[in-house]
Amino acid sequence: MIPGDGGEPAPRAPDAPRPAAGRPRFVVDSGAGGPIIRGDEVNKLIRVAVVGATGYTGCELLEILTRHPRAKVTSLTAKLDHPILMSEESPRFAGRLDLPCTPLDVEDVCRKADLVFLSLPHGVSMKYAGPFRAAGKKVIDLSADFRFRDAAVFAQWYGVEHAAQGLLPEAVYGLPELRADEIRGASLVANPGCYPTGSILAIAPLLAAGLVEPGEIIIDSKSGATGAGRKASIPMIFGEVNESFRAYKVGRHQHIAEIEAELGRAAGVPIRVLFTPHLAPMNRGILTTVYLKPRSPVSSSALLDAYRGAYARSPFVRVMPPGALADTKNVLGLNFCDISAVADDRTGRIVVISAIDNLVKGAAGQAVQNMNLVSGFPETEGLR
Amino acid sequence: MIPGDGGEPAPRAPDAPRPAAGRPRFVVDSGAGGPIIRGDEVNKLIRVAVVGATGYTGCELLEILTRHPRAKVTSLTAKLDHPILMSEESPRFAGRLDLPCTPLDVEDVCRKADLVFLSLPHGVSMKYAGPFRAAGKKVIDLSADFRFRDAAVFAQWYGVEHAAQGLLPEAVYGLPELRADEIRGASLVANPGCYPTGSILAIAPLLAAGLVEPGEIIIDSKSGATGAGRKASIPMIFGEVNESFRAYKVGRHQHIAEIEAELGRAAGVPIRVLFTPHLAPMNRGILTTVYLKPRSPVSSSALLDAYRGAYARSPFVRVMPPGALADTKNVLGLNFCDISAVADDRTGRIVVISAIDNLVKGAAGQAVQNMNLVSGFPETEGLR
Amino acid sequence: MIPGDGGEPAPRAPDAPRPAAGRPRFVVDSGAGGPIIRGDEVNKLIRVAVVGATGYTGCELLEILTRHPRAKVTSLTAKLDHPILMSEESPRFAGRLDLPCTPLDVEDVCRKADLVFLSLPHGVSMKYAGPFRAAGKKVIDLSADFRFRDAAVFAQWYGVEHAAQGLLPEAVYGLPELRADEIRGASLVANPGCYPTGSILAIAPLLAAGLVEPGEIIIDSKSGATGAGRKASIPMIFGEVNESFRAYKVGRHQHIAEIEAELGRAAGVPIRVLFTPHLAPMNRGILTTVYLKPRSPVSSSALLDAYRGAYARSPFVRVMPPGALADTKNVLGLNFCDISAVADDRTGRIVVISAIDNLVKGAAGQAVQNMNLVSGFPETEGLR
Amino acid sequence: MIPGDGGEPAPRAPDAPRPAAGRPRFVVDSGAGGPIIRGDEVNKLIRVAVVGATGYTGCELLEILTRHPRAKVTSLTAKLDHPILMSEESPRFAGRLDLPCTPLDVEDVCRKADLVFLSLPHGVSMKYAGPFRAAGKKVIDLSADFRFRDAAVFAQWYGVEHAAQGLLPEAVYGLPELRADEIRGASLVANPGCYPTGSILAIAPLLAAGLVEPGEIIIDSKSGATGAGRKASIPMIFGEVNESFRAYKVGRHQHIAEIEAELGRAAGVPIRVLFTPHLAPMNRGILTTVYLKPRSPVSSSALLDAYRGAYARSPFVRVMPPGALADTKNVLGLNFCDISAVADDRTGRIVVISAIDNLVKGAAGQAVQNMNLVSGFPETEGLR
Repeated sequence: MIPGDGGEPAPRAPDAPRPAAGRPRFVVDSGAGGPIIRGDEVNKLIRVAVVGATGYTGCELLEILTRHPRAKVTSLTAKLDHPILMSEESPRFAGRLDLPCTPLDVEDVCRKADLVFLSLPHGVSMKYAGPFRAAGKKVIDLSADFRFRDAAVFAQWYGVEHAAQGLLPEAVYGLPELRADEIRGASLVANPGCYPTGSILAIAPLLAAGLVEPGEIIIDSKSGATGAGRKASIPMIFGEVNESFRAYKVGRHQHIAEIEAELGRAAGVPIRVLFTPHLAPMNRGILTTVYLKPRSPVSSSALLDAYRGAYARSPFVRVMPPGALADTKNVLGLNFCDISAVADDRTGRIVVISAIDNLVKGAAGQAVQNMNLVSGFPETEGLR
Repeated sequence: MIPGDGGEPAPRAPDAPRPAAGRPRFVVDSGAGGPIIRGDEVNKLIRVAVVGATGYTGCELLEILTRHPRAKVTSLTAKLDHPILMSEESPRFAGRLDLPCTPLDVEDVCRKADLVFLSLPHGVSMKYAGPFRAAGKKVIDLSADFRFRDAAVFAQWYGVEHAAQGLLPEAVYGLPELRADEIRGASLVANPGCYPTGSILAIAPLLAAGLVEPGEIIIDSKSGATGAGRKASIPMIFGEVNESFRAYKVGRHQHIAEIEAELGRAAGVPIRVLFTPHLAPMNRGILTTVYLKPRSPVSSSALLDAYRGAYARSPFVRVMPPGALADTKNVLGLNFCDISAVADDRTGRIVVISAIDNLVKGAAGQAVQNMNLVSGFPETEGLR
Repeated sequence: MIPGDGGEPAPRAPDAPRPAAGRPRFVVDSGAGGPIIRGDEVNKLIRVAVVGATGYTGCELLEILTRHPRAKVTSLTAKLDHPILMSEESPRFAGRLDLPCTPLDVEDVCRKADLVFLSLPHGVSMKYAGPFRAAGKKVIDLSADFRFRDAAVFAQWYGVEHAAQGLLPEAVYGLPELRADEIRGASLVANPGCYPTGSILAIAPLLAAGLVEPGEIIIDSKSGATGAGRKASIPMIFGEVNESFRAYKVGRHQHIAEIEAELGRAAGVPIRVLFTPHLAPMNRGILTTVYLKPRSPVSSSALLDAYRGAYARSPFVRVMPPGALADTKNVLGLNFCDISAVADDRTGRIVVISAIDNLVKGAAGQAVQNMNLVSGFPETEGLR
Repeated sequence: MIPGDGGEPAPRAPDAPRPAAGRPRFVVDSGAGGPIIRGDEVNKLIRVAVVGATGYTGCELLEILTRHPRAKVTSLTAKLDHPILMSEESPRFAGRLDLPCTPLDVEDVCRKADLVFLSLPHGVSMKYAGPFRAAGKKVIDLSADFRFRDAAVFAQWYGVEHAAQGLLPEAVYGLPELRADEIRGASLVANPGCYPTGSILAIAPLLAAGLVEPGEIIIDSKSGATGAGRKASIPMIFGEVNESFRAYKVGRHQHIAEIEAELGRAAGVPIRVLFTPHLAPMNRGILTTVYLKPRSPVSSSALLDAYRGAYARSPFVRVMPPGALADTKNVLGLNFCDISAVADDRTGRIVVISAIDNLVKGAAGQAVQNMNLVSGFPETEGLR
């Protein structure tokens, strides 16, 4: 039974803290079963476009969408001089998706699709979201352009003025585990960043439950190389990444803004986090190791209980059993976020470890999860 | 500037003052130039044995020793039923080191070698160190067996009673950057663990200088797979490690004991650290990301100055320039520990990142550095 | 142009003419659309067991079967002392397949399943195929045990006597691109080896068409490490495989027997091949480079035409466009075999390059393709 | 005793075929011991420049040269706008080689160095070799520019006219195992390509001995990614190379010209080879699998004997024992070429497998080996 769907409110876990207004209600809104599909809706098929189809995220969207029972990819675009076949650009799609990929023509896309995924660089999405919205299309944007209510925050972290501030009020931050209800009613969804997805899911429940000090959050993330996109640069060629491990942008990665905004919402107070991203020599996966300080002594099992309560209705969060630790291998190609937690008695600290596939739960999978929500499909449709 | 030193500039070797008992003297004792070699010593050649020559550490020792101008490998042993040629076991050594590798026979080794590297599992070294010492051989032990003065600490973390407690008082912890003087006079050197090397070098100077809170130390380490040794187990086969990133033994890795003991010595107070080791899909390298809290506000450049001061005479520590971050790629195959530091103004925390090659500075290279010291060779001999 | 077909266009299933005895009919029998599903068959759901569920192939079977719309996994077994949850053994399956994995009990499996996948080591499958067949179950065996009509060939290459020779006559070699009709009527399918799949698909059409010399076949294959199974051994640990490239079993790999048997059937004469397998530092994928000598001069485009003709009705073979070369990346996680070909004018030789995912088209995917065929499902069901 | 050094001619292996004029004399000329160094020559130090120091090959040259006892790096240049410190460009060199790296100024380099390594792209070296030669400097060129006597061959395979044809007659192809004598007397050495080194060393002895058919040579090579140089391009970024295996330039790689020229010289007849290069997901190493047809039946041990005879005086070729196969892991970081051979009785073919490190024996190591020869140093100096 899904709240806002005419059913009764979902029961809250008995010991869950009351969410303040504007704060995420964990147990409530991401119903695993999804809405009941009735009669003529059973075969409802949505026509979707992928704008920016040739990057890693665009291609992963196509991998998921071609298997999705209720979506039909009808339009692909990329930064091109002339149309090519998608299977020429990426032979993976030969015999699976024999569509042309064309230079972006907004009107053409609008004729062909009901919902548009914008898989474009930061600063570019903001130019196209408006026209698509004006044409009545639902938009799921995978860039950072609509992740912040406050255009000044965007400008501060991304170094460019926002060119479509009028759209910011209607944009919803698309992290379904925290905002499923809002997303269901949205027409412009800002799909979260990869690091923020793994970080926020690992921290928000403990903050919301008041279990940890909001001023003592340290996040140490390790990402595979596809997180940097499909772009040519010497630091990302194989010989530089393989057999190498490095940190970058210590304390100043742009994803910090997103993490702090969402955690602040969960905590009800402004949050600052220390965030260190690292590049690991693998294609996919983000392991995030979070260091927290409990407000009062807490056991590992109490932590796991808190997560299980918070995510009881979140089909894509898996709380690991006691003693088990998240491993990116277990989520490779899957839309799950695995969460494990250890209370370290010796130091009185908490270590939370989450794992996602950066291209799935960290990008394309989550975008399809959002598509399911805005389209009235079951949240898990096409994602298991 | 070293605490407890009254503030005066640290004087140089060889007329260095005696260090405060039990505390490391950073600037003082690891003279890059090493002792001056005179007359008949120039061509002094030491005969060395590697006991446990077929593991990753044993083989790396051979790589270094075969190029060392003043060491001659004369005896190799391994857990074997009968002698084999080293080049049969590892074809890398064909044409480079055509010695047999035999089952261990202490007397035979004693006849052939002046100095013995024990590259054996924990709990095994302790059985052989005594006989070699009794025969007057210098011993550099790469296991954990002699890293603790207190046998109870060993028993607590390694789960076995110590079988050679009589040797503990004479053993010296072989981290030359902190204890070069002691090592020079030692006959039994306990070569540090790989994680402790990268961790201690990153933290000790700031603790010793009183710059950081001793109760707020978080260490997040990422290691290549050779750190697990050359042993068959399903979790370490290629298909399980490649394209995977995982933590293990959170808060309970046995190297914690060593890190805490040495940092406690540097700080002058007992230390507890929260330590999380991770396995990265690469052969070699440890990147260690340390989170610290400054006692009073400090800049990145002040931190780097502190390191440069502390390691002014340590030829194998490289303090990175401001803005640069340590990368395991830069120390691959080298005996350096690279150290970088960032003061994060937003959160008031310090992030220190160190990089070593786990098989070189984290094991075999450091063992040869110790061999140089106990043998009166220049510290850098054969290691550049 | 199909050998033994007199040149007339190949007719379609279901009223295909009988193929020339013992020779593959390429265009004829692997109809992409598969048989027409009528009325009550639409929702037919088959209950399947995976015997040997914890290896790489067993787990890949589960990945595919859990997404298959017409199969329901009802029983999992492995070599165990006591039952465990599959998600304990492999956390990837948590929340996706919450079945126990038990020690093998043939009667219990027979109660629960209609079709049994045997994902067991060579020599073990032969012990269990009989009991399952006696109980009327369809069996798809992923070992080598039923790949040869001639028990002596098995004994020669696998070094053990065959213990279930009575079943050999009913077993069908499960390479659908060459034997779809036979497979549709079979109850015991011997799923091909990984190397043979990539090799046979690359060579058989040219042999069958009489385009190449049957006595001049050289196969150079490169496989990812999961091909060696999920077993602990020092040569397969990460540190030995990563940053390494090696050949093994040159000219004497057991898969040679299978390749020669099938190619002999395609050529109509006995075939000997020179086969060199190599281990590449990656998890998945086999690239096979084949060197052939044309009977008379032939162009690259004529070669590609021959493949396109032969595989016109094979939904899982993709013939690459001229100038493009197969890459394992393009088939990662997919059930395709990509084939590319180059006629080298300078030397008068042909180079054919095929790519498969060793765990999908080389094992579990092909097994499900065979399940589809023996169950009357469309060949591609659950595999796109 | 080295031929051409005033000593008597080196004895030939008793059964060695008489080399024709202009054909390599394997046993004769690459004396492992090198020339005897007398008196004042002992401490002779050569000043060397690396022009093009920031690529993979340039950096590997520096790795080797900084450890070389008789070379002193005095000048580094790269394509730069202004000078930088080498340790800024590559922090690996911090504390090891604190030289500036400057834009190329031929006169400046000539003032500082006696010998110049040109580590430049094809087509660029030819512009600078002349000026350096005119200044009396010895030049070791790592590009393809001087590998061919015939400028037309260069133009055909590299697509550019040769701009320094006047230098071609004095250039010597720098494969010491085949041409040590010529190299000793040379002033302009054309260092071989990486693929040619592994291929020629694997094939030339059998051709020279008349053991194999010269018209039946198939070479299947697998290279690590550094072979493509340190350049940004999408096909070489980590996400495209990792977990991928692909062939490229089948039958038309420019290294074919070099292989054919040298093998033709060894065979005494023109040679055409079928050569297929592949990209393997690893940093370093080339494994070359060669398929040959014996003129008359031959055993594996006879093949190995032929190699051992041919390379008896070649310190950097290791012929593997019977049954062992070359593995790139065994030559990682070393200047060896390992060679193994199998006579396949079933098909009457020969499989030869060689392994090199593409950056060492395939580039920088061989260049230093050539430097040793042209400088009168022992061939192995600084390379063990």
